[in-house]
Amino acid sequence: MAIATAEEYLERAAKLSPRLFIGGKKVEKLTDHPITKGVIDATARVYELTMDPLCADIMTAKSHFSGQIISRSLHIHQSNDDIEKRLEMARLSSQKLGTCNYRCPGNEMLPALAATSWEIDQDKGTEYHTRLNEYLMYAQENDLVLSGSVTDTKGDRRKRPLEQDPDSYVHVVGKRADGIVVSGAKQHATGAYAADETLVLPGLSCREGEEEYALAFVIPNGSEGMTYVAQYNPLSAEREHADDIRHLGNPLYGQRETCLVIFDHVFVPWERVFMCGEIEYTQTLISRFAKTHRMNCGGACKVGFMDLIIGASQLLAEYHGISRVSHIVQKITRMIQLSNTSLACAIAAAHRGKEEPVGSGVFMPDETMSNLAKLNTNNSFWEVMALAGDIAGGVAVTMPSEKELENPELKEYMSKYLRSAAPAEKRMRIVRFLQNWVAGLHGVGTSQGAGPSQNQMLVLYRITDLEGKKRMAEELALMKT
Amino acid sequence: MAIATAEEYLERAAKLSPRLFIGGKKVEKLTDHPITKGVIDATARVYELTMDPLCADIMTAKSHFSGQIISRSLHIHQSNDDIEKRLEMARLSSQKLGTCNYRCPGNEMLPALAATSWEIDQDKGTEYHTRLNEYLMYAQENDLVLSGSVTDTKGDRRKRPLEQDPDSYVHVVGKRADGIVVSGAKQHATGAYAADETLVLPGLSCREGEEEYALAFVIPNGSEGMTYVAQYNPLSAEREHADDIRHLGNPLYGQRETCLVIFDHVFVPWERVFMCGEIEYTQTLISRFAKTHRMNCGGACKVGFMDLIIGASQLLAEYHGISRVSHIVQKITRMIQLSNTSLACAIAAAHRGKEEPVGSGVFMPDETMSNLAKLNTNNSFWEVMALAGDIAGGVAVTMPSEKELENPELKEYMSKYLRSAAPAEKRMRIVRFLQNWVAGLHGVGTSQGAGPSQNQMLVLYRITDLEGKKRMAEELALMKT
Amino acid sequence: MAIATAEEYLERAAKLSPRLFIGGKKVEKLTDHPITKGVIDATARVYELTMDPLCADIMTAKSHFSGQIISRSLHIHQSNDDIEKRLEMARLSSQKLGTCNYRCPGNEMLPALAATSWEIDQDKGTEYHTRLNEYLMYAQENDLVLSGSVTDTKGDRRKRPLEQDPDSYVHVVGKRADGIVVSGAKQHATGAYAADETLVLPGLSCREGEEEYALAFVIPNGSEGMTYVAQYNPLSAEREHADDIRHLGNPLYGQRETCLVIFDHVFVPWERVFMCGEIEYTQTLISRFAKTHRMNCGGACKVGFMDLIIGASQLLAEYHGISRVSHIVQKITRMIQLSNTSLACAIAAAHRGKEEPVGSGVFMPDETMSNLAKLNTNNSFWEVMALAGDIAGGVAVTMPSEKELENPELKEYMSKYLRSAAPAEKRMRIVRFLQNWVAGLHGVGTSQGAGPSQNQMLVLYRITDLEGKKRMAEELALMKT
Amino acid sequence: MAIATAEEYLERAAKLSPRLFIGGKKVEKLTDHPITKGVIDATARVYELTMDPLCADIMTAKSHFSGQIISRSLHIHQSNDDIEKRLEMARLSSQKLGTCNYRCPGNEMLPALAATSWEIDQDKGTEYHTRLNEYLMYAQENDLVLSGSVTDTKGDRRKRPLEQDPDSYVHVVGKRADGIVVSGAKQHATGAYAADETLVLPGLSCREGEEEYALAFVIPNGSEGMTYVAQYNPLSAEREHADDIRHLGNPLYGQRETCLVIFDHVFVPWERVFMCGEIEYTQTLISRFAKTHRMNCGGACKVGFMDLIIGASQLLAEYHGISRVSHIVQKITRMIQLSNTSLACAIAAAHRGKEEPVGSGVFMPDETMSNLAKLNTNNSFWEVMALAGDIAGGVAVTMPSEKELENPELKEYMSKYLRSAAPAEKRMRIVRFLQNWVAGLHGVGTSQGAGPSQNQMLVLYRITDLEGKKRMAEELALMKT
Repeated sequence: MAIATAEEYLERAAKLSPRLFIGGKKVEKLTDHPITKGVIDATARVYELTMDPLCADIMTAKSHFSGQIISRSLHIHQSNDDIEKRLEMARLSSQKLGTCNYRCPGNEMLPALAATSWEIDQDKGTEYHTRLNEYLMYAQENDLVLSGSVTDTKGDRRKRPLEQDPDSYVHVVGKRADGIVVSGAKQHATGAYAADETLVLPGLSCREGEEEYALAFVIPNGSEGMTYVAQYNPLSAEREHADDIRHLGNPLYGQRETCLVIFDHVFVPWERVFMCGEIEYTQTLISRFAKTHRMNCGGACKVGFMDLIIGASQLLAEYHGISRVSHIVQKITRMIQLSNTSLACAIAAAHRGKEEPVGSGVFMPDETMSNLAKLNTNNSFWEVMALAGDIAGGVAVTMPSEKELENPELKEYMSKYLRSAAPAEKRMRIVRFLQNWVAGLHGVGTSQGAGPSQNQMLVLYRITDLEGKKRMAEELALMKT
Repeated sequence: MAIATAEEYLERAAKLSPRLFIGGKKVEKLTDHPITKGVIDATARVYELTMDPLCADIMTAKSHFSGQIISRSLHIHQSNDDIEKRLEMARLSSQKLGTCNYRCPGNEMLPALAATSWEIDQDKGTEYHTRLNEYLMYAQENDLVLSGSVTDTKGDRRKRPLEQDPDSYVHVVGKRADGIVVSGAKQHATGAYAADETLVLPGLSCREGEEEYALAFVIPNGSEGMTYVAQYNPLSAEREHADDIRHLGNPLYGQRETCLVIFDHVFVPWERVFMCGEIEYTQTLISRFAKTHRMNCGGACKVGFMDLIIGASQLLAEYHGISRVSHIVQKITRMIQLSNTSLACAIAAAHRGKEEPVGSGVFMPDETMSNLAKLNTNNSFWEVMALAGDIAGGVAVTMPSEKELENPELKEYMSKYLRSAAPAEKRMRIVRFLQNWVAGLHGVGTSQGAGPSQNQMLVLYRITDLEGKKRMAEELALMKT
Repeated sequence: MAIATAEEYLERAAKLSPRLFIGGKKVEKLTDHPITKGVIDATARVYELTMDPLCADIMTAKSHFSGQIISRSLHIHQSNDDIEKRLEMARLSSQKLGTCNYRCPGNEMLPALAATSWEIDQDKGTEYHTRLNEYLMYAQENDLVLSGSVTDTKGDRRKRPLEQDPDSYVHVVGKRADGIVVSGAKQHATGAYAADETLVLPGLSCREGEEEYALAFVIPNGSEGMTYVAQYNPLSAEREHADDIRHLGNPLYGQRETCLVIFDHVFVPWERVFMCGEIEYTQTLISRFAKTHRMNCGGACKVGFMDLIIGASQLLAEYHGISRVSHIVQKITRMIQLSNTSLACAIAAAHRGKEEPVGSGVFMPDETMSNLAKLNTNNSFWEVMALAGDIAGGVAVTMPSEKELENPELKEYMSKYLRSAAPAEKRMRIVRFLQNWVAGLHGVGTSQGAGPSQNQMLVLYRITDLEGKKRMAEELALMKT
Repeated sequence: MAIATAEEYLERAAKLSPRLFIGGKKVEKLTDHPITKGVIDATARVYELTMDPLCADIMTAKSHFSGQIISRSLHIHQSNDDIEKRLEMARLSSQKLGTCNYRCPGNEMLPALAATSWEIDQDKGTEYHTRLNEYLMYAQENDLVLSGSVTDTKGDRRKRPLEQDPDSYVHVVGKRADGIVVSGAKQHATGAYAADETLVLPGLSCREGEEEYALAFVIPNGSEGMTYVAQYNPLSAEREHADDIRHLGNPLYGQRETCLVIFDHVFVPWERVFMCGEIEYTQTLISRFAKTHRMNCGGACKVGFMDLIIGASQLLAEYHGISRVSHIVQKITRMIQLSNTSLACAIAAAHRGKEEPVGSGVFMPDETMSNLAKLNTNNSFWEVMALAGDIAGGVAVTMPSEKELENPELKEYMSKYLRSAAPAEKRMRIVRFLQNWVAGLHGVGTSQGAGPSQNQMLVLYRITDLEGKKRMAEELALMKT
């Protein structure tokens, strides 16, 4: 078994020292800053779950290199069953964390990278796949946290990379005998500053002349030339200044934390480069990543979140004494419908997956179904937020601080006036928990993560066999003889 | 192989002589009347597809009695793979018929009846399951068409059967040594008058005192005491009076034809009775039937219809020269999304199916997912109709008869003014085909067949583990220590 | 008072002899053919309502020419109050007819034509407005039925009129001293064959070189060179062959009947020509017509239909004994919401109307609100159909003919098995009435009449002050100093 | 003219000293605390707008007492035109503040209170209406800020007030010669701590025995026995700890600030009591308040917010270079549709308003239309948030702090990597502004303010003439002779 403990991860994390800024200030120690600590604690919790025998079937896999039991977070699907377990891992960790499993983005890139590097090697005699395998064996052995980054900063979206500041997309700015030098920046990088390493994929489908942008590599945390700028928003401020995190919506693990990762002439040795210049494979690589990511993100991770919202809504309805009222039952039922519909798409994506490319040993989910999982969730999540907010009532946005429960001048008033069919403490706790879901970052975060709806719609239209459907209609309409 | 040819079925059908009324008149010969002929032709087409080697994997199965290759229409799922093939059969026959596969309703009752009769026999030492097996071997050997009926006429829905005319629900009115006598009527019986036999299930969950209503049996077409009253609506009138069926929306196979089946002191021998008085099993029997039916009906049959609508909409958009316009592309994409979402639920239902009861050898789809397949389709189908109607334009409801194309006084005008980017003949044909989908019975038919949304919503709420979800929320909100 | 009686109209109608074809056959006498008779009876009913003192405020107006009381169907709005009364007329006649008020389309063109002809005369010294006034005085005096036609047949929609068969759009093919000669055809012409006269507007916004298409005129029923080809669909067949119209969904008045109106070298004297060649005014003319039509069609006529659907749904729910069940109440409420929302848009359109052009004396509804009335109804009507179908149950599509109630072999069975909490006769009657709404032409008819959604969306985007909204945001974001 | 300046209000505000707690701490001075200062500045801005000649028609009215020009915030509608101006005031102040107009809630209660107190006086010979008039003349003369409170804390919602802690609803706990003593608490009180006075209405429809709860009065800020506990959430924390408010989403005015207002044996003199014990009028009073509030809140205030969101979305789309992309245009159009639909309902509510009760001189909006305005907005606002979030992209939730733009270590990176087709400063500013709308309190706040959807649905069902609609259907179905 090659699985590290939470403690081992925490030890490594304590030694990380990325150049990181949050809210205008440099972060000195990741394990001390209230925001970064949440990311590290969430990741440690994933290590704990991986060691938990009850979760072993979902959280671990057998390495196809070593035959050892490893974290599924570092595994590449070898079958449709693997794909299905992978999505169950996403759902489970969402249920347990209420935020990102920060080992997820890097893991989602591995099958796409494995399949595509294998293909390039086959076609061109390169050694990308070999390098990837070697790197991955190392990562599995040390049970590393891999984060991942795809989305470039893009500048003016009407322009290609070479029509504007060339650093608008991450690219090669120099080649050396021992490696390459890269510049540019990736945005929306989830938990990158707390990961051992970060995988980087190209963020656009490259055309001729854009070879410098056809680039995939892995880089250790805080390498020379890298700067991380964390997101900052009201929830950041709240956590940064909280006296007592038990009063926060997701006390231990917080919100999904992302950052801008800036590469300023960063050196990457060749053995960590998995694509460099093969423009004709960028579209495929991105599509493979997208279909894996969309299945998990839309059809499992967010389903886990919806499970939490449903549970909390039901609890609060019970606390308010309205859980049997018919319109409440109907709203809970609607949330059940929406969450399970996305899950169904993910299950179908896994079950109808296949080896791709044939011979590579890598399995990929069905593209229609994985895109659907995400597309359905984009709208559902907003509706679930609306339903939960409706069940919760105005208190979800007008509730005083839980600190007032301990304020000697107020505590009697608070117990008296904030209670419902349940005591004020319990009610306020679950209201705050729900507030985190219905009055925060989740609507946009959910619909934008793994790409906005338009992206999935373009894929669905492109891959659907409209000709076949036209033939069916013509046959029945007696238009063919 | 025990599969009959279309010709063999047609021969049998020519001999059927049920007491049948359509539009106020008695039907003398099923193969002559324009409405009943459509039902028979559709059924014959299913026999053809079953013999088609290209469809064999989907349309046939291996009998678990004889080991012979049989029509899947008479098979009982022996595995999740069987369930999945079954749903593919539903989709395929919808694509090929554009109307009901009339062998479907009877087939959907078999697993539920097999599972429940097995259970009753186990618990009570009855011989229902044995009888069913013997009957089914006979049916498989002769490759019979089985239709099925569930929904009673109900009378006043606020009242139980014994609080009103007892015939409001089909029930036993007499018992004899050799069998039982039944009265009452079943509505919405799809294609019953053209089937070899009809399976009858109880339409309500029975309570104590309602033993006479806990009743399942099979009855040959046109048995003594049976009367069939066919549905009648504008599409019936159109077909009844059509000079040339090639001008109809679904020329060969027409709309789904149902009837009211009246039982007036009808005798059923014991060997054809599969439940009689076991009230405590009625709810289970109905639920098992419902989950099978909802998966196929919502997640496959109607998906096949949506495939036809998408194909015809795309064709017409091309004929009108607007298929690349962005809002048209978006509408086609939305139809693709909706149809595949229902399909995903059906696939997940099959893939997550299981043997039920354990030991029976019968496999059942997952209840959450099968109910979802139907629930999603209920709304989707209306939206797909709206989208297709939007793409088609006003001509979908204002088009003159295709007969005018042959009217010597008009044909030049027609060619001139009904053409688009395509000639008038082709355009009118596909418009009429689409009209059949978007301006007819399909909206209500789809949402009511296999039960209205409220039924599925009740199931979803009932079977969801809300307690588990509450625990997850409490854990993250630090409400448990 | 210059209002004719229903009898006077019926006398005129009996003398009409347009060259008309329905379902492949020539119609000899409008008052005899079951389909055309429905159109005439509906129109006669509008004359009755106009004479009804209870409806006088809505159905009549004071002529701004003569000061006499006239049918509002021939009035041009002289105030916002007139616009509001006009929409109430649309709603009332829908409630009373359950089909088209065939005097409506012609009436909706009058304000647009009055405003635009006034403008052209002002700008160019023409005499279109004078001609229109004279014609209108004549029409008011004789209380004529005016129908109206706009939509050309269009051929290949990617092409302008002169890039294809020039008759794809109605146009001038000859000019004489006493008038013009026109060719082409208009589709979707509602009730044109039963009207005294038909107003014709241009169906496209003309560009330079397309002067022959910038054309508005009025033409008496059945003028030399005109041919009418009626729509034909399942409901046409049903009515054509009905023994007893009392068994039909809308017994007396039927569905909305439209036709293709073909002009083959038809002569129009100059005094009946209201635009001829002024391409730069076609867009304005169409927009003015559109905003009037969309307010009435979307926000009043279809609201009247929805009133009928709500009433029938509630009745049937009561007959079925389920009207107090919570999900039924919720569905009825949702229909109330949807129908009143469209009505609200129409009322706002009228209330925020204004004189346009200033000085013309003609009042026009607000363009944003009138387009919204239609756009909201497009989607709402489908949802209302779905809700009503859900309340009605499967019987809405599977019910036998009401003839069976009189069939001696069946009538006892029918009374017994078709009854609910109400007797079979009443229940079947209201089911058939609802079927006409939820399983027929109304979904497409509603969303296409007055133009599909995309048209309204284009208008809304075009006329919204986005710059103003941007300024507001910038101000609050402190982006301006 | 009796209109105060912003400065006069600010002087008064500086003297307010309510017993107020925010986030666990007592607030010493309202004009100093960053959260309460936003409330005061927003209110001062309303005073400015009232003095602005460009806004005079909307922001001011003529007192029906004095004939003087007063703030519309203290006016009682004397006509439908007044109602319409009132809604325009709500929209305008939302556009200018991006948060609550804190003078609004109190103003919305005045017409209901005036109408109902008039009615009670008429029926019972009381002097509530006289007292209200005198109070109002005083308030108009001094141009006071009136806030308002309705919603009680309710405790266990299954129980009536007397079945639980009687303080769960505000009630009379003592009567004296000179006045009454009240206890209990009101929640969701918008801006109460910064208002000169607070109007209090009963929060439930009282039954016999609940006379102590049938209670309306007005009370000066910070009266003896009153305690205010402010809401606290992530946006509170962000503002509380902000170094520079220019970096906040709504820099000057912040979010809507509400509080819990606790009454602990508070004395109210009789001249400030407007209802006391008249249980039979509580339902009417609440309904009248509700219909006024729902029209303004749903159909105007939130429309003003949607105007800001549309403006900001369009700006950001332009900054990103994607504003002409077809799906972006469609999304902007959809937002235009949704916002104007709610506005239409409000306009119709005002235009179809009427004097109520007749003789009182008080005008009330139409109940159907006002409830619709709110009901439509409840769902629309969530959809608008989703659309705006879709247009904005992931940066709406992952953007770093604007402080980094001034961070010497980062500012070059920030300018380089946060720019788009617009410079980083402008883009970040508008992203933060949008974040405030799409990733904060607005979804729940909008759907809960003025009551959740279920409340409006109950009203719509109750006040709709279903009998009339049933008669229409029966007439057309030939069911009446």
